[in-house]
Amino acid sequence: MLSDRRAHLKSLAAGIGALAASWAVPAPSSGAKGPLDNADSAPRFKIEEIPLKQVVVDDKFWSPRLEVNRTKTLDHVYGELEASGCIRNFDLAARKATGRFGGPWWADSDVYKWIEGASYVLGSHPDAALERKVDDLIARIAAAQQPDGYLNTHVLIEEPDLRFRNLAFFHEDFSSGHLFEAAVAHYEATGKRGLLDVATRLADCFDATFGPGKRAGLSGHEGIELAWVRLYRATGEKRYLRLAEFYLNQRGQKPSLFEREYESLPRDRTVLWREGRPVNLRALHEHFFLARPPAFDTSYCQDNLPVREQSSAVGHAVRAMFLYCGVADVADETGDPALLAALHRLHDSVTLRRMYVTGGIGPSAKNEGFTDDYDLPNENAYQETCASAGMVLWNHRMFKLTGDGSYIDLLEQSLYNAVLAGVSLEGNTFCYATPLACDTEFKRQPWFEVPCCPTTASRFLPSLGRYVYSQSADGLWVNLYVGGELSVTLPNGAKVKVRQRTDYPWDGHVRLQVEVDQAQEFTLHVRIPGWAQASALRLNGAKLSPPVSKGYAHIHARWSRGDGVELSIPLETVKLEANPKVLQSRGKVALRRGPLIYCLEQPDNKADLDRIALPSAGGRLAEHFEAGLLGGVVIIEGEGRVRHLDGWETALYRPVRPTDGAPAAIKAIPYCVWGNRGQQKMKVWIDSVAS
Amino acid sequence: MLSDRRAHLKSLAAGIGALAASWAVPAPSSGAKGPLDNADSAPRFKIEEIPLKQVVVDDKFWSPRLEVNRTKTLDHVYGELEASGCIRNFDLAARKATGRFGGPWWADSDVYKWIEGASYVLGSHPDAALERKVDDLIARIAAAQQPDGYLNTHVLIEEPDLRFRNLAFFHEDFSSGHLFEAAVAHYEATGKRGLLDVATRLADCFDATFGPGKRAGLSGHEGIELAWVRLYRATGEKRYLRLAEFYLNQRGQKPSLFEREYESLPRDRTVLWREGRPVNLRALHEHFFLARPPAFDTSYCQDNLPVREQSSAVGHAVRAMFLYCGVADVADETGDPALLAALHRLHDSVTLRRMYVTGGIGPSAKNEGFTDDYDLPNENAYQETCASAGMVLWNHRMFKLTGDGSYIDLLEQSLYNAVLAGVSLEGNTFCYATPLACDTEFKRQPWFEVPCCPTTASRFLPSLGRYVYSQSADGLWVNLYVGGELSVTLPNGAKVKVRQRTDYPWDGHVRLQVEVDQAQEFTLHVRIPGWAQASALRLNGAKLSPPVSKGYAHIHARWSRGDGVELSIPLETVKLEANPKVLQSRGKVALRRGPLIYCLEQPDNKADLDRIALPSAGGRLAEHFEAGLLGGVVIIEGEGRVRHLDGWETALYRPVRPTDGAPAAIKAIPYCVWGNRGQQKMKVWIDSVAS
Repeated sequence: MLSDRRAHLKSLAAGIGALAASWAVPAPSSGAKGPLDNADSAPRFKIEEIPLKQVVVDDKFWSPRLEVNRTKTLDHVYGELEASGCIRNFDLAARKATGRFGGPWWADSDVYKWIEGASYVLGSHPDAALERKVDDLIARIAAAQQPDGYLNTHVLIEEPDLRFRNLAFFHEDFSSGHLFEAAVAHYEATGKRGLLDVATRLADCFDATFGPGKRAGLSGHEGIELAWVRLYRATGEKRYLRLAEFYLNQRGQKPSLFEREYESLPRDRTVLWREGRPVNLRALHEHFFLARPPAFDTSYCQDNLPVREQSSAVGHAVRAMFLYCGVADVADETGDPALLAALHRLHDSVTLRRMYVTGGIGPSAKNEGFTDDYDLPNENAYQETCASAGMVLWNHRMFKLTGDGSYIDLLEQSLYNAVLAGVSLEGNTFCYATPLACDTEFKRQPWFEVPCCPTTASRFLPSLGRYVYSQSADGLWVNLYVGGELSVTLPNGAKVKVRQRTDYPWDGHVRLQVEVDQAQEFTLHVRIPGWAQASALRLNGAKLSPPVSKGYAHIHARWSRGDGVELSIPLETVKLEANPKVLQSRGKVALRRGPLIYCLEQPDNKADLDRIALPSAGGRLAEHFEAGLLGGVVIIEGEGRVRHLDGWETALYRPVRPTDGAPAAIKAIPYCVWGNRGQQKMKVWIDSVAS
Repeated sequence: MLSDRRAHLKSLAAGIGALAASWAVPAPSSGAKGPLDNADSAPRFKIEEIPLKQVVVDDKFWSPRLEVNRTKTLDHVYGELEASGCIRNFDLAARKATGRFGGPWWADSDVYKWIEGASYVLGSHPDAALERKVDDLIARIAAAQQPDGYLNTHVLIEEPDLRFRNLAFFHEDFSSGHLFEAAVAHYEATGKRGLLDVATRLADCFDATFGPGKRAGLSGHEGIELAWVRLYRATGEKRYLRLAEFYLNQRGQKPSLFEREYESLPRDRTVLWREGRPVNLRALHEHFFLARPPAFDTSYCQDNLPVREQSSAVGHAVRAMFLYCGVADVADETGDPALLAALHRLHDSVTLRRMYVTGGIGPSAKNEGFTDDYDLPNENAYQETCASAGMVLWNHRMFKLTGDGSYIDLLEQSLYNAVLAGVSLEGNTFCYATPLACDTEFKRQPWFEVPCCPTTASRFLPSLGRYVYSQSADGLWVNLYVGGELSVTLPNGAKVKVRQRTDYPWDGHVRLQVEVDQAQEFTLHVRIPGWAQASALRLNGAKLSPPVSKGYAHIHARWSRGDGVELSIPLETVKLEANPKVLQSRGKVALRRGPLIYCLEQPDNKADLDRIALPSAGGRLAEHFEAGLLGGVVIIEGEGRVRHLDGWETALYRPVRPTDGAPAAIKAIPYCVWGNRGQQKMKVWIDSVAS
C-alpha cells in the first residue's frame, strides 16, 4: 500500500496527465490560414516608434520628475525588492540560498520591471555603479533558470510540481512577459545579450509547451501577449509573434480554459498565499470565477468572449490594458480587421463610458477594475496607477495604428493626471488606488504587499521619451510638448535633429527647431490638441496655415538648418461637466487647464472642501505660477461659495434650500501634485451652484 | 444489499436524525428568566389599536379605491388563485383531487391573504355570497390539515419527507403566519371559529416541534413572528407569544441555523421550483447564502446578527419589514429594552438612509431588498409593493410603542404614495416592482408567478381603517385624515362616536364631530403632520391653541354632543431635494403637496420627459382639481425648461454648457395614480436648473 504522500504524488501525476490531455490543441490543418499567415503583406509600422535612446527629455516640468525617479525611486524600489525577498527568490531558486519565497507569487515581474526601468536610465545616463547592479542582478536571474529554460521562482521554490498548472493565478506568463520586456530594454540600452538570452531560452520553453498541436495557453493576467510581439520585433523570431496570436485566440472559449484548469487541480492542496497565509489551491478560482456557483465566469480576466467579439471593457483594469495592447500589437503586425474592429469597440467602451476625467480607469477595488457604464465614483475611485499607465501604452498603440491625434489627447490626459499623481514629488511614496476625492485617511505608501505600482512608476517614467515623437515614411511626428531633442535618420539616410523648447503644460508656446546638414524635404506633423480652442503656427516667424487633419498640422517643407516652427496654444481654464449619466459627478464641475486636471486640496482653502461650491458658469477664475508651491505650479484662483450643509444628518429629503452661501476664495492645484503635503482632503469634482 | 431507493431513504432518515440532534435547543435552566417572564409587569398597549369593525371609511378619496377592491380586486385575485392552482393545492393535499402542486412553494400564504382581505370586507359589508365563498374555502383548507395539525400543501403534495427540513426556502412558517392572521381576521369579522381552530391546531403542531428544549426554529421568510403575537392576542395562549420571542432569539447565530440546515440536506435531491423547473434542493441556499463560498452569509433574510444587535436594514426588504414588525410586537408585549433599541436603530437606518421619497424601500431586484446607504436608483427602483405595505405596518407599530406622530407621517407617506401606486385604478393590475422613473416598457400586470403583491393589495386596502384612529387610557387619537366614522367605548363604559369629514388629500380642511350621550371628559389627540408649514385648530368655531407635542395637538375637554373640531392645514406644493449623498437624485427636485408625491407622466407633457427641467427655486407653480382626470385629482402646473441634451453620445466630459433651454409648460400628477393610461414615460425626480 502506498503511503499517503506517495498516493498524493501519484494522483498529482495522473492529474497532470489528464490536464495535458484536456488542454491539447489540434494542430491547424494545412489548408487553414490565420491572419498571421498574411503578416508580411499587411501594412506595417505606418507610424513607427523611435528608439528611446534617440530622444532626450530636457525641460522644467519633466526633467525634475525623471531626475527624482533616477536618483531616488530606482534605489528605493530596489531596496524594497530586496527587503521583501523578491530578489533573493532567484538565489533560492538557484539553490544558492535557503528559505521561503518572498513577495507575491508574481514577484519576479517586479524585479524584471525594475531592470527595465534601470535599463532606460542607463540608455540616457551612463552610470557604472547602476550598470554593475543590473549586471549582478541579471547573473542571479540567469543562475535560477532551469536547463529547459523554465524560470519562475515561486513555482521553483514552493510548488515545483505545479509548473504551468495554475495559469489563472500563478502568473508564470505575466512574469515571463515582463522578463521579455526587460531583456529587450536592457539589450537596446546596453547592447549586452545576457538577459535577452535568458528571455529567449524561457520563450523557447513556452514555445515547446504551448501552441497549436501542443497545449492550450492563456494568461490569467495578460502581459505576455504584447511582450511576445516585443521579443519578436527585437529578435525577428516569428514563433514569438505566432504565440502572441495563439494566446489571443485561446481567450473566450466555452468552457473556459480556466474552468478546465480548475477541474484538474487537486482538491485538497494547500499553497501559501500572500504573507505566507495557507489557502486551498482552488480558492482563487472560486473567489474570482465562481461568485455565483455553479456558473463559471472568467470576465475578471477578459476571458468572457473571444477577443474579436469583445465590445465592453470588463474585469480587472490592468489585465484589460495589457490585453488590448497585445491585441493592438498583433493587429499592427497582421492587419487582422476583426482585431482592429474589436479594439475600436473596446476603446469606445472605455473612453466614452468608463474613464475618469483624469484619464484613469477601473473604479472598483473589488475586482480592481471595471463595473458598469458611467459608474465612476470619486471618493473610492480605485484608478490603479498601473491601469493609468496602461492607458498610455494602449493609446500610443492606437495612435500608431491610425495616425489619429485624438489618441494622443487621451494618452496625454492619462499621463499628466492619473499616471503622474501615482508618484510623490519625493519619488519614494506611491498610489496604488488613486482616488479623485479623499478625506484625511488617504496617503501614498512607500511599498505595497503587491508592489506593482511602484515598479510600474520606476519603469514607466524613464520611458517617457518614447511617446514624444514618431516617424513615418514621409516625415516626423511631434506628439507631445516635452522639451528636449530628437535625433533620427530619414529614409534617405540623412540625419535630422529636432530641438523642442517649451514651458508646457504651464504655458502653451512650443518652439521646434530643425537641424539638418543639408536641406531635406519631409513633413513635420505637429499635434494640435483636440481640447485647444485656438492655436497658431509660425514658420521662421511667418504665419502658417498648413492642412490640419486628425489632430495634426501637416507642415510639408524643404527644411534647412535652423528652421523654426512656433506653435501657440492658448491655455485657458475650462469648467468641465460629466455626462449626466455619471451620477457621482452630477451637479459638479472639474477644472481643466491645458492637459492638466485640477483639484482642490485642503491646505489651499479655508472652508471645508465639502462645503465649497463653484458657479457652474461665469465667475472670475485667474491663473498664476507659484514658484514656491509644490516644485512650482500654475494654480487657479477664483471666487466660490461656502454652502450650508447642516441638517442632512437627520433628513433624507427636505424642501429645497438656497445653496449659494457666502462668497469664498478658492484655489486649485494640478491633480498630478496632489497629496504632497501630508494627509489632506482633496477633490477633483467640485459641487456647482447657479451662477 | 439495499436497493438504491432504499439506501436513499435510509440516508434521508439518518439525515433527519442528525438534523434533529443538530437543531436541538437546551431547555432554559430554571433560574434564567427571559424578558418574556416579566411580560405582565411591562407597560402594555399604551396606545391601542381599535378593532377594524368600529371604523367606517367614507370619503371621496378612499371609498372609491376600497369599493374597487371589494367589487373587483377580490374576485380577480380569487380567480387567479384558482387558475394558478393555488386553491386546488388544498384538495390535492386532502387527497380529494390528483395532480401537481400549483404556484410558488408558499402559495398557501396567498390563499390565506385573500381570506384575510375578504374577512375585512365581510366585517364592513355583509355579503352572503362572499361569506359562502370564504366558508367553502375554509372547509377545503381544513380538509387538508393533517391529524397532528401540520398544514402546508407544497410539502404535503410534493416533498412529504422534507417537512420542516428546508426552513430557509419552503416557507412553512411564513405561510402558517398568514394562516394565523387570516384566522384571527375571519374570527373577528364573522365570529366563526372554523379557521381559527385550524390555525391553533397548526400553531400547536409548531409548538410541539419548535421551542426551548425542542428544535431550533427560524423563518427563512419572516412573517410568523408578528402572527404568533396576533394569535396570542386573539386567543390569550401565552405559548404563542413565547414562540414569537423564541423565533426572534434564534436569529443571527454563528453558524447560522440555515448553514446547519444546508449541511443536513441531501446533496443530490431534485425538487420542483417555480413553473415546475427541477432544481437541486440545495441550490437556493447556495444562491442566496453562498455568493462568496465558502463564507455562509444569511443577511438576505436578516440572519446576519442577533436581532438585538442589528443596526442596519439589510437583505430582502419584505422579510425585513415582517421581522421588524414581529420585533415591535414582542417588544410591545415584553418591554424588552434591547429590542426597542434595535428597532430605533433599524428605523433610522431605513428612514434616514434607505427609503425612497415615496415611502417605499428596497432598491434592488437582485435581492428584492436593501443595498447600501443612500443608494436609491429611480429607474430600476424595485420598491416592492409588499415592502411598502410593510412600512405602513411597521410605522404603525412604532407609533403605538411611542405615541410619536412622526411615525404616522412616515406611514402616511408610504400609504398615499408607494402602496397606493401598487394597484391600478381599475383594481385588476398591480405593480410588483414599482419604479420611480420608467420608460414605456413598464406596466402593471394582472398576476405574477409569485403573486404576493396582488394578494397584499387585496388584504391591505380593506384594513385601512385600522390606521385612522387609536385609543389610549386618556382618550382618542386621530392619526389620518380619512372621512368616515369611529365608534368606541371609553374606559368608563360610555360610547363615543367621532365623525370625520374631509376632502384630504386634495384639501387640508378636516372637520371632526364628537357624538356622546352624556358629556365626557377625555383628550382628543389630533395629528399635526410634521411637513405642515402651518396649521390652525378651532373648537366649535373658536380658535384653539392646545398643547402640541410629538406631532399631536392634545385637546383636553369635556365633550358634549355635537362638539366640532376643525383642523386646517395649508397644502402647498413644495420642491423637495434629496440628501446630496443620494447620487441618483442629485441635481433633481421632487414635488410634494400634502402627503402626496407627484410625478411627471408623458401624456400630460409635450416635451420628452428626459429633457424637462424645473427651476430649483422660484418659478410659478399652480394647482387645481381636474375632475375628469384619473378619477379626479389635483394636478400641479408650472413653467419648466426643455433642455438640449445633444452630443453626450460621443462625450464623457465636456466644457459646461448652459442648460436652461426653452420655456415649457409642465404638468404633474400624483404618483399614486401613475400608470393608468397605458405604457408611458414617468419620473418622480425632475432635473433642476438654476432659477
